[in-house]
Amino acid sequence: MTSHMSPEEFRKHGYAVVDWVARYLETVEDLPVLPSVEPGAIAAMVPDHAPEQPEDFQALLDDLDRVVMPGVTNWQSPNWFAYFPANASPPAILAELAAAGLGQQGMLWSTSPATTEIEMQVLDWLVGLMGLPDGWRNASGLGGGVIQMSASDATHAVLVVARHRRRHEASVEDMVVYVSDQAHSSIEKGVTVAGIGHCRKVPVDDAFAMDVDALESMIAADEERGLLPIAVVSAIGTTATTAVDPVAAIGRVAHRWDLWHHVDAAYAGTAMICEEFRIHQPDLSQADSYTFNPHKWMMVNFDCNVLWVSDRQPLIDTMSIVPPYLRNDASDTGAVIDYRDWHVPLGRRFRALKLWWVLRSYGAEGIREVVREHVRLAAEMADRLRADDRFELFAPHPFGLVCFTHRDGIERTRELAAAINASGKAAVTPSQIDDTWFIRVSIGQTTTGQRHVDALWGLIDQLA
Amino acid sequence: MTSHMSPEEFRKHGYAVVDWVARYLETVEDLPVLPSVEPGAIAAMVPDHAPEQPEDFQALLDDLDRVVMPGVTNWQSPNWFAYFPANASPPAILAELAAAGLGQQGMLWSTSPATTEIEMQVLDWLVGLMGLPDGWRNASGLGGGVIQMSASDATHAVLVVARHRRRHEASVEDMVVYVSDQAHSSIEKGVTVAGIGHCRKVPVDDAFAMDVDALESMIAADEERGLLPIAVVSAIGTTATTAVDPVAAIGRVAHRWDLWHHVDAAYAGTAMICEEFRIHQPDLSQADSYTFNPHKWMMVNFDCNVLWVSDRQPLIDTMSIVPPYLRNDASDTGAVIDYRDWHVPLGRRFRALKLWWVLRSYGAEGIREVVREHVRLAAEMADRLRADDRFELFAPHPFGLVCFTHRDGIERTRELAAAINASGKAAVTPSQIDDTWFIRVSIGQTTTGQRHVDALWGLIDQLA
Repeated sequence: MTSHMSPEEFRKHGYAVVDWVARYLETVEDLPVLPSVEPGAIAAMVPDHAPEQPEDFQALLDDLDRVVMPGVTNWQSPNWFAYFPANASPPAILAELAAAGLGQQGMLWSTSPATTEIEMQVLDWLVGLMGLPDGWRNASGLGGGVIQMSASDATHAVLVVARHRRRHEASVEDMVVYVSDQAHSSIEKGVTVAGIGHCRKVPVDDAFAMDVDALESMIAADEERGLLPIAVVSAIGTTATTAVDPVAAIGRVAHRWDLWHHVDAAYAGTAMICEEFRIHQPDLSQADSYTFNPHKWMMVNFDCNVLWVSDRQPLIDTMSIVPPYLRNDASDTGAVIDYRDWHVPLGRRFRALKLWWVLRSYGAEGIREVVREHVRLAAEMADRLRADDRFELFAPHPFGLVCFTHRDGIERTRELAAAINASGKAAVTPSQIDDTWFIRVSIGQTTTGQRHVDALWGLIDQLA
Repeated sequence: MTSHMSPEEFRKHGYAVVDWVARYLETVEDLPVLPSVEPGAIAAMVPDHAPEQPEDFQALLDDLDRVVMPGVTNWQSPNWFAYFPANASPPAILAELAAAGLGQQGMLWSTSPATTEIEMQVLDWLVGLMGLPDGWRNASGLGGGVIQMSASDATHAVLVVARHRRRHEASVEDMVVYVSDQAHSSIEKGVTVAGIGHCRKVPVDDAFAMDVDALESMIAADEERGLLPIAVVSAIGTTATTAVDPVAAIGRVAHRWDLWHHVDAAYAGTAMICEEFRIHQPDLSQADSYTFNPHKWMMVNFDCNVLWVSDRQPLIDTMSIVPPYLRNDASDTGAVIDYRDWHVPLGRRFRALKLWWVLRSYGAEGIREVVREHVRLAAEMADRLRADDRFELFAPHPFGLVCFTHRDGIERTRELAAAINASGKAAVTPSQIDDTWFIRVSIGQTTTGQRHVDALWGLIDQLA
């Protein structure tokens, strides 16, 4: 008979993994941020065939150091300034352990009432904390929130709802979705995956925010030529520069033309926990859906995306399919939420646990402090860049991202980014809008503080 | 300044969570399998607002017992015979902890070479272990495997590929997908979400397997009326009864009519690690894609779905969108896999770690023993039911699922299922095909052994 690891062995090995992770968190700051590994080098350390016989747990632990570590990109380093953050935090890590141990499957309320109800409740907490409309609370019975895997999944899901809602009016090939030309690639991908015919890129102003007059002209022109505009996506914090689209004005246009209005606040949503940043979402009354990623900046490790809808019914109408083996009394009464009807996948993990633990471990005030400190550090970095003749700021910096160029041109800018990344001491992301290359400095990793940003500035100063 | 949990505190609290999980695994067998909780009872124990100030970690741990446990459905109990298993195992649970600690983001090869290459390699292990076509290995450069969140996501993704591939030939509203009338609801949902016009349910034979002649007649009739058949989905192990569609014959029909052929082995795929079960997938040479869930029966906790394609190009052509901020040298050379182009979401966790750890901890032989023991126990349960005048077997039992009815009719069958579930000593799933209700006994939880199945039989005997 196969022998399973006993509870005693689980304790022993579990402590060892806890120690390993603690050591990683302790030392990650001193590791090169980016790996220096050739394609295929990690795979070459893994045998070509699975072992027939069991291996000792110690061998797995050893291979974390021998095989995995050389191929790790240290997203959890406080010297991480690349992309957007993909934060974690100690309570979130431990919640993953507890959730994995419980092994819940939350597709229906009845298959794990705790998974469903804690998710409902904690997402309602966030509605309050982020100043979102009251009708988005699960407790309202009208709108509601759901955890999805990623913003890509959430956006794809609402585009499918927008398509489904208008399916009797036109062929999908004649439907149109509008985004700014600065919107995240996931929206164009969502349009493609949903089979929608057209994704129009609306021009932006000097601050990279959507030009609402251009949006309305494009909608009118498309209707004129017999197409069916179905949705518009606003960004609060675009990926390239964290530009903020005029959400309220876009909402009014969406309402006038009967478009689904989806708000993508994947990164910047976390900032809304601080009242002063809500100037960037002054009026969400004309938003049909809103997504943000606690797994970016709220210290809840991936995956944990939140999607809210102002009216749950169109989402459920699109996604619900109930075969006999999933029917049950609780669902039939309509008294509970069955989250399988709120997204594409059926199965779901107990992801609300880590969100719950992070919010309670830090308290709302603790999270606000982290966000405000990151934004302050970004402003300070911007001041330094602005005061230095060698550099030019490339865009406004409303949150924790600063974008800049080297005045000597594209080549010097790209070389500087490459030199920072090659140093092992920090990671930044070079990016491009039209013909301009610029460097993105994204300040938001959980433990990034003053000395890390000072060190980055020293590096920029030295390598420029 | 916000204070984060120090590495020392992380160690201490981490040990406590390990202890909590160990105790859960030790005691889950004695807990009522299903919760007895009214809708809203768990939510009522969670405050309506997030705390402003930090709470002690001990309060979170206490609430695992006070708030979470009353609302837990014990999927990890060895007395779990409901749905299909959603297995976990000690090495998988610890791998989740390590993966959460590392906090990798594997969207691109360059954003975590280890996440990508270990996934590539371990999925290639499974190709060998499960007797799948060699060209499906990632190392082949032709086909390949990728971890997705769920079989629903995998199936939806390939339906989108099938649609995309034929997009110039017809409007999506005129496209048709074929499944047996026993196929999992995720396929009909995938068709709806992909916006495909028609999902035809092909009739089944007495063993609930797809009637291939009927399939071919339906395809011909649809072409005749100007529709475009684009895909057919075969099941190896349907959800209701684990019926096995004639995969080879369906493959030939698919090839003749230029249909994408997707194989759904979500539950039964795990059994293919034992050579004797491969009679159920005699010829996969005409399969374009194949999905199975290590998170069902292979002791790798949710989420861990695997999708293979025989040719990676149509998948990448459909899913790839490359904005400037995701461009990088490694990807531009084409030397590496960027898994973001293999599914809808962009971000991805290091889920291959738990698959790697489980395969190594048990060894292939250890997993085969677990599967064979579950199938043996199912056959024994079937023998007992067959030998008892009160019961009737409802379907063949090629794997670990046994379906039966009470001879006194639908009401007695449903009452028996309800009585078993109300006992707290075991959980089964009542289900329905046409007018017949039957009881599904799914034997496959990691630690389910002889005495648990004996106890279930005792319960059935007593309550019938």
